[in-house]
Amino acid sequence: MALRRLLALGAALGRRSCCSKPSLPPDFVEALRAVVGAPNVSTAAAVREQHGHDESMHPCAPPDVVVWPQAVGQVQELAALCHRGRVPMVPFGTGTGLEGGVNAVQGGVCFDLSRMDAIAELSLEDFSVTVEPGVTRKALNKHLRGTGLWFPVDPGADASLCGMAATGASGTNAVRYGTMRPNVLNLRVVLPDGRLLHTAGPGRQPRKRSAGYDLTSLFVGSEGTLGFLTQATLRLHPLPEATAVTVASFPSVGAAVACTVQVLQAAVPVARIEFLDEVMADACGRFSGMGLPVAATLLLELHGSRHSLAEQQHQMEEIMRQNGGSGLAWAEGLEEREQLWSMRHNAWYAALALRPGCQVRHKDGDDGGSARGAAGATALPSLAQGYSTDVCVPISRLPDVVVETKQDLQASGLTGPMVGHVGDGNFHCILIFNSQDPEEARRIHAFTQRLGRRALAAGGTCTGEHGVGLGKRALLQEELGQEGLDTLRSIKAALDPYNLMNPGKVL
Amino acid sequence: MALRRLLALGAALGRRSCCSKPSLPPDFVEALRAVVGAPNVSTAAAVREQHGHDESMHPCAPPDVVVWPQAVGQVQELAALCHRGRVPMVPFGTGTGLEGGVNAVQGGVCFDLSRMDAIAELSLEDFSVTVEPGVTRKALNKHLRGTGLWFPVDPGADASLCGMAATGASGTNAVRYGTMRPNVLNLRVVLPDGRLLHTAGPGRQPRKRSAGYDLTSLFVGSEGTLGFLTQATLRLHPLPEATAVTVASFPSVGAAVACTVQVLQAAVPVARIEFLDEVMADACGRFSGMGLPVAATLLLELHGSRHSLAEQQHQMEEIMRQNGGSGLAWAEGLEEREQLWSMRHNAWYAALALRPGCQVRHKDGDDGGSARGAAGATALPSLAQGYSTDVCVPISRLPDVVVETKQDLQASGLTGPMVGHVGDGNFHCILIFNSQDPEEARRIHAFTQRLGRRALAAGGTCTGEHGVGLGKRALLQEELGQEGLDTLRSIKAALDPYNLMNPGKVL
Repeated sequence: MALRRLLALGAALGRRSCCSKPSLPPDFVEALRAVVGAPNVSTAAAVREQHGHDESMHPCAPPDVVVWPQAVGQVQELAALCHRGRVPMVPFGTGTGLEGGVNAVQGGVCFDLSRMDAIAELSLEDFSVTVEPGVTRKALNKHLRGTGLWFPVDPGADASLCGMAATGASGTNAVRYGTMRPNVLNLRVVLPDGRLLHTAGPGRQPRKRSAGYDLTSLFVGSEGTLGFLTQATLRLHPLPEATAVTVASFPSVGAAVACTVQVLQAAVPVARIEFLDEVMADACGRFSGMGLPVAATLLLELHGSRHSLAEQQHQMEEIMRQNGGSGLAWAEGLEEREQLWSMRHNAWYAALALRPGCQVRHKDGDDGGSARGAAGATALPSLAQGYSTDVCVPISRLPDVVVETKQDLQASGLTGPMVGHVGDGNFHCILIFNSQDPEEARRIHAFTQRLGRRALAAGGTCTGEHGVGLGKRALLQEELGQEGLDTLRSIKAALDPYNLMNPGKVL
Repeated sequence: MALRRLLALGAALGRRSCCSKPSLPPDFVEALRAVVGAPNVSTAAAVREQHGHDESMHPCAPPDVVVWPQAVGQVQELAALCHRGRVPMVPFGTGTGLEGGVNAVQGGVCFDLSRMDAIAELSLEDFSVTVEPGVTRKALNKHLRGTGLWFPVDPGADASLCGMAATGASGTNAVRYGTMRPNVLNLRVVLPDGRLLHTAGPGRQPRKRSAGYDLTSLFVGSEGTLGFLTQATLRLHPLPEATAVTVASFPSVGAAVACTVQVLQAAVPVARIEFLDEVMADACGRFSGMGLPVAATLLLELHGSRHSLAEQQHQMEEIMRQNGGSGLAWAEGLEEREQLWSMRHNAWYAALALRPGCQVRHKDGDDGGSARGAAGATALPSLAQGYSTDVCVPISRLPDVVVETKQDLQASGLTGPMVGHVGDGNFHCILIFNSQDPEEARRIHAFTQRLGRRALAAGGTCTGEHGVGLGKRALLQEELGQEGLDTLRSIKAALDPYNLMNPGKVL
């Protein structure tokens, strides 16, 4: 929290301009209680504080009140109340976002949707399932055990699936299974005035459609600014029969990327291909006790039948060799594989360990999303803190961008090991900083803005999977240009004319 | 044309309500000529007629004038002129649509974009290419020869790629490579007032992004109602090392579908899995001289390395056997494979041959899209004509929907063999009718509406790949419900407040 308070200083200008908080209408909290019952409404400072931030550096901005609706009808009634009273509404899932998406910068009502957690309509033949916003990806995959199906999108954190839809999340498996967008078939949305929209029509789940504008894709990635995602129908995938994982070291970033491009060109159906720069590889190797070489590193996972796996491994080894890579033996057993992935999943801790004096907070998720709630809190003073940035560039530009970014880190005196979903050209810097040093926080902010601009200059995007939230609004304008931003604004104004849904975000 | 004139009768009511054609402002055509030069503007009746319809049954509705811009700046200037004069604008690619998308029901200016046909910015490392609207999918794949990459989306017709983006096209390869939506990385759009929008920002092509609302997905499938797609950056795929094709017959539709579901559950990475009902299999078998059994049939294609192909074939054979399927030997050589696919691609002719007295028009494309222009015309009187419908349902419901549809065809006295992209639950009836019998045309219209409703009742969509155009507006309303349609209308009104872009379509 210390850092958040310090950063509040830097963000004060922004807050002044966007946070002329209107007070709630008289008897408004009473009206909320009448809808969901008194135990499902809270104005307690601790609860509001808990709901006023995510896992990013953005200063806490608590809502005026938190509500826990239990059913979609209640979400509709609550939204209608807010709409009539012109009160801002902020959807809240697990709070594991990384760009301040849940921070209630204009106050208002936080809708904590975690208690709506039904898993309905699992169809094994149609490879689909419908979940409410309280269902996390791990809970879904646990539910799917024994069915032969799984939901592969994995942003690291055990985020809610509707929250993942809201930010357009992806993660390590996206290179093979896609991001959230192609894996969402339908969304049940409560619009800002309380009306109920099914983006692909009520009860529908065709695998493809060309009937009207694609509302599903519009709401995926809308970051709570267009409505509440109160149900998602998701596309499931068959579990692979066999899986193999390896780690390979390369003489340079360029060689690791060239290897990746050749793997993709050879149509090896790689399931995960993760890049670690030499700082990250060293940190992970030391943290896990595996002792990886201090080199550009790829962590690769293959899925397939037992038979096809052998061929994929052979192809992969040949391509790695051609690019000067030298790898470990393939891990095929569950335990061995988990050991390698836990090395990657612990990148966050490994990065924190790079800074002496670090107090590690409970952290779940490889890209910076953490488990929230009681388990996530710590009473210890935290000196070092991590912040995970996210950009995505065309893969041909990745070596240059990574090298320039490393130079920038050095010139800025910052610690920021890199990990990335290299098959998609998407990478993160895990920035480790002293949470009691506002000057360093300012340097980090400036660095992330430069990194975003570097990605834009390379034909990429300022965010491949974390979203815009509060932190990348200026970059978004540069990315899309005036016409692009005007078009986004037109759509926002058309669907939320009073700017009540998660105001101050994205736009 | 005969049928179109007859159908004009049935459509008269619709046209009266939506076609209060305003006359063009004075000197308007002169102003268009000043932008693109006199040879690139035509008001000739034959030219207008040629641009007033696609390959569907919808009556020809010619624009007032046709223009051929040669550069995006001209499209912008022309759009600004139309915008100032409140003149409707209709984008035109190859005219191979199937739901009346190009018919100028309110007159105005048809923008024929076929002369903007540059292929730019091919990046083999990034698996991407940028094309102008005159580039067709076959032209692109010809351009890509020798690169090891291809663009797999194949709706049958040699449509323009921007046109395919506009309708959200897909086709036989979608089960493996996806529809247009995930394969478009960026679109350069001329907005109705002439401003230029890049849906993912100018010059950008990251493989994934979560920066703001997904404008690319919004414009894919917008059917020319939100702006002109004047350039598309597409995602390319590696060519498979080896390909194998087979045909298998099944005891029932249910068995063929069960086989498909098991293939998908077993994660066999099938590239194409096409269904033919027994009428279509019989027709294709006779037309091609291959003599297929009169049975529910699957036409399957596998892509992979030589090694992995053998395993896929083995898996596939086992699953086919388990479902009572009996297949031909695998065709692996190019000639053999092309023979099997030409059997499928000639489904249209084979269907037409089911009706005696048929005069076959030149037709290119398996689902009904035909090559247009001089080669597409015929001076022969056409007695029998085909019309390809399109619905998509969850695969578990496919057997019931197919069986009910067959009963409906029989009860309606209609000839409508079925083909479908069964891996996606998407299928077509190729309806063959006497083009000089308005009563039969009316029965066909009623049948297609019932088929759409049957798909909706099964949790599907009224169109998986052909779009809404003129023909499915009522079905779209039923599919999305009032809130869905209102949301589409809000977006349309926000981006095209004067309803100038392809008015009367979709909504």
